[in-house]
Amino acid sequence: MPNDTPPSSGSPSSGPRVMTIPPGEDRERLTCPDCGYIAYRNPLIVVGAVAVWEDGRILLCRRAIEPRKGYWTLPAGFMEERESTMEGAAREAWEEARARIEIDALLAVYDIPRISQVQMIFRARLLSPDVEAGPESQEVGLFRWQEIPWDELAFPTVTWALREHHDRLGRHDFAPALNPTPDTLARWDRML
Amino acid sequence: MPNDTPPSSGSPSSGPRVMTIPPGEDRERLTCPDCGYIAYRNPLIVVGAVAVWEDGRILLCRRAIEPRKGYWTLPAGFMEERESTMEGAAREAWEEARARIEIDALLAVYDIPRISQVQMIFRARLLSPDVEAGPESQEVGLFRWQEIPWDELAFPTVTWALREHHDRLGRHDFAPALNPTPDTLARWDRML
Repeated sequence: MPNDTPPSSGSPSSGPRVMTIPPGEDRERLTCPDCGYIAYRNPLIVVGAVAVWEDGRILLCRRAIEPRKGYWTLPAGFMEERESTMEGAAREAWEEARARIEIDALLAVYDIPRISQVQMIFRARLLSPDVEAGPESQEVGLFRWQEIPWDELAFPTVTWALREHHDRLGRHDFAPALNPTPDTLARWDRML
Repeated sequence: MPNDTPPSSGSPSSGPRVMTIPPGEDRERLTCPDCGYIAYRNPLIVVGAVAVWEDGRILLCRRAIEPRKGYWTLPAGFMEERESTMEGAAREAWEEARARIEIDALLAVYDIPRISQVQMIFRARLLSPDVEAGPESQEVGLFRWQEIPWDELAFPTVTWALREHHDRLGRHDFAPALNPTPDTLARWDRML
């Protein structure tokens, strides 16, 4: 779940690099003064899953890449073109943990406007407990609730999604969780 | 709700225009052979709302721009950077209909992989019935259910979201609707 590395590229001396308001628009866009290209930048969607085996254990991946290399995360990543959100979440579970999953519900939608990211985290069933690290993971594992390495989770949204999953065990047809309120965060802290 | 016009720019003879697999990646990306810029393309988020006044009437906007100029739509548009999904939906309601709204629930999440778009449609309360056309609308209006111009709706997702809204009247804490199944579409057709 690469919270702080939206895909971007280019250097200050080439490609789109000048902020200007294009004709007919109401805000500045990044444009290339050489070729006129307008690099529209829009929020990126991260898709991921809390993937659960029959015995309740949850799949986590230890990141092999920055940011937060060595910390544990949910299988998640940037949605690609021409896939659905659920297909994207399943693809990431395969890429990062060789896990085959079946999506069950939309667990959470997290807005992170600071980095223009929307995270859509699904609840999913693991179709097999046989998982192994993909190229972006150092190791992967199935964790009982009591075994989750809370102090070694990579991103706040991983903690949030795990908590929300636990709060919704056995429930169906629920509204997805949104960013936790300060009250919710305080309640979770008291439970540690 | 601009279904078929993701923001894009540039011509075939300038800017990112060559598909190639960058080092360390597993798929082709659009790159500029002149400056080396990689134009990552990711799905775009459309945010919108079924905005309802106290008497149950629903806000619709008649499009002043292509595609589907002259047809009725929900206030919706591409999410911008550094805003939340709900802020984006409220912004679009203001821009297209000078409507002030308060988001109530996530009504629907529609995947449109063909055009790499994810639509997040909220249910919202109109804070005032005083609405007027913004620059992208020919006119705006509040419609009773029986008055909705079903044959003049701009996009399938507008129809879907209105139907799902109607199916959830009085309900709270529900899972957002996903793309309708063939069975659901057939049920709606029978109701016409």
